[in-house]
Amino acid sequence: MRDFIFFNPVKVYFGKKCMKYFGNEAKKHGKKALLVYGKGSIKKNGAYHDIVNSLEKAEIEFVEFSGVRPNPVLSHTKEGIELAKKEKVDFIIAAGGGSVIDESKAIAAGAVVDFDVWNFYTGEKTPEKALPLITVLTLPATASEMNMGSVITNEENGLKLSTGAEVLYPKASFLNPNYTMTLPEEQIVYGTVDAISHIVEPYFNHTAEYNILSLNVADGVLKSLKENCENILNEPNNYNFRANHMWSVTVAFNGLIRTGLGRSEFPNHAIEHAISGLFPDVAHGAGLAVVMPAWMRFVKEEKEELLKRFGQNLFKLENHKPDHTIEAFKNWLKSIGAPVSLGEIGIKENDIEKIAEKAYEVMQFWAMDTDKYSKENIEKILTFAL
Amino acid sequence: MRDFIFFNPVKVYFGKKCMKYFGNEAKKHGKKALLVYGKGSIKKNGAYHDIVNSLEKAEIEFVEFSGVRPNPVLSHTKEGIELAKKEKVDFIIAAGGGSVIDESKAIAAGAVVDFDVWNFYTGEKTPEKALPLITVLTLPATASEMNMGSVITNEENGLKLSTGAEVLYPKASFLNPNYTMTLPEEQIVYGTVDAISHIVEPYFNHTAEYNILSLNVADGVLKSLKENCENILNEPNNYNFRANHMWSVTVAFNGLIRTGLGRSEFPNHAIEHAISGLFPDVAHGAGLAVVMPAWMRFVKEEKEELLKRFGQNLFKLENHKPDHTIEAFKNWLKSIGAPVSLGEIGIKENDIEKIAEKAYEVMQFWAMDTDKYSKENIEKILTFAL
Repeated sequence: MRDFIFFNPVKVYFGKKCMKYFGNEAKKHGKKALLVYGKGSIKKNGAYHDIVNSLEKAEIEFVEFSGVRPNPVLSHTKEGIELAKKEKVDFIIAAGGGSVIDESKAIAAGAVVDFDVWNFYTGEKTPEKALPLITVLTLPATASEMNMGSVITNEENGLKLSTGAEVLYPKASFLNPNYTMTLPEEQIVYGTVDAISHIVEPYFNHTAEYNILSLNVADGVLKSLKENCENILNEPNNYNFRANHMWSVTVAFNGLIRTGLGRSEFPNHAIEHAISGLFPDVAHGAGLAVVMPAWMRFVKEEKEELLKRFGQNLFKLENHKPDHTIEAFKNWLKSIGAPVSLGEIGIKENDIEKIAEKAYEVMQFWAMDTDKYSKENIEKILTFAL
Repeated sequence: MRDFIFFNPVKVYFGKKCMKYFGNEAKKHGKKALLVYGKGSIKKNGAYHDIVNSLEKAEIEFVEFSGVRPNPVLSHTKEGIELAKKEKVDFIIAAGGGSVIDESKAIAAGAVVDFDVWNFYTGEKTPEKALPLITVLTLPATASEMNMGSVITNEENGLKLSTGAEVLYPKASFLNPNYTMTLPEEQIVYGTVDAISHIVEPYFNHTAEYNILSLNVADGVLKSLKENCENILNEPNNYNFRANHMWSVTVAFNGLIRTGLGRSEFPNHAIEHAISGLFPDVAHGAGLAVVMPAWMRFVKEEKEELLKRFGQNLFKLENHKPDHTIEAFKNWLKSIGAPVSLGEIGIKENDIEKIAEKAYEVMQFWAMDTDKYSKENIEKILTFAL
């Protein structure tokens, strides 16, 4: 059990009626907001309507900034920062999924400094202040609505990097499961895979010797993610499944499971960031579904006991070997419609080398063990994913 | 899945070196503190020494207020409020277990109003402001260090009531597992039982139709509590067991498990509050160990599925009936040294009537279903505990 500091001051308003609190919450943070969103799905799922109504009632002025892409990019982020500065907004409202929230965090931090926001992602600077941020979540996946992380891709060099700081915690997040009812099936699948990956990394890569609490809680959240995802695919209109799934995805990565586990490396994320940094059309969850089983094969001897535990907990395997867990996991990913090979996400064998190079670069930024994860070994993992 | 608002802004500093942050954290809240503690065990376990050293280094003045009793009482609370007002302290430091923290919350809320603090406990008033509170936990049991609840006993009428409000969240809590190394075995046992009871109430008494996340997480925390308690009793000097236990007890009742479960009644607590309100020498955990199996017997038909789940999760029972779960739970409580009958905590058959009356009164304050929990039925439960 390692020492830790746990602090998560995000106020979560959850449920079908949560938006009734939006106006009052927004008022706490100022009189003028920047409303950030993506390609406009929030105009179909009801979120835009509810936000605008609430802001008007609360007499809060707002400026819209749309067009955030999945795997949000630095150039668009910078446009948002310029707009926030020009319009002198008091706070930011992010309405969408993890990409919108991550870019909004970057805008919130970038709007109060005079230097390039990318410095926060390379680690040269740390965010020390930021505009207040409120999120309205419409796509459960990254848990950015309840953590202090943000991931941005720099299109100039294909680097997808992250930053984190207490000032980037949203002040409040609104989670209305009804906004997720119109999501395409694949978004539920990729969101689930993303949430599972957020547990997989600390589950397998933690450094603490003993922490049964975190592993037991992780087992419980993993089971919820699997069962709720299956339930939603079978019965897409069931509110309870959507709601329980939405909250499970958030809890998977709000910091609780990682408490006391010590430092955990994020190798699956490093490799996936290389993939979607170079191939921006690959969804983060799709990339992770391809990488995780391959990575598990790479570590199957070192992580034998945990792989067996993972298989027993999620797939009720008994008297099994790590290979059985990996096989069951891959089969389950296929069964929900996730890709499990590079080919399925449009990546060819001769792309492996450049992905490995980029992943190696990400791992260096993350101060990971690059002896274990040498370029050759990353290529080996990627080859397992062919 | 029910709508909810989740907000828990307590900053938790956890681990053997956590006190190095104490001085800086304290400075944020003012220049003069009231240091509240009990009978002085903090002078033996090292907490007092570390606090005083940190305060001196941080040049923070402090006034001591000791003598908080287990099951803290209103009269002593009022003395603390008077002292806090007279000395014009900026903030409160609670050093001890749940009793010290609960009384400190009452002092924090009472020091900023001119009326009787008991009004917060009867529900006539709600705390709207309070002095900032920092806690240094030395006895894991109530999770008061990471929630907004407080329980106080009014000795004049034997009523043990609770209050809760966002302003009662500690600003920061320091959890150093080394302070728990010198605890008597029975304190570990009672603390474990208390933590289990905090999960048992929402686990069995929730009103949401569907919430697999909360039940799965609850299962995981319950297993951690059981295993860590057993481990500590077998190997009292093992830091990892103490540490993982300490954090498990906090997580059991920091609000997370209850999210989305809807309203849960707390019948075991209502009955126990009557017991320790009338018999203040009964430890809260001891009372709960006696009440819980008896209460389970009372609801064994209504709660059949959940009782089977509880038995499977904690005691690996298979193809079992609720009675087997109750028997296994009772046997396990005995095995760790907890009492399981009223006689063992010094209560006689002819005390049952007055306990039932008092419990019924508590249940009325808590707006519980007093048809289900009529005086006769409470007597029935207590009779099961003979």
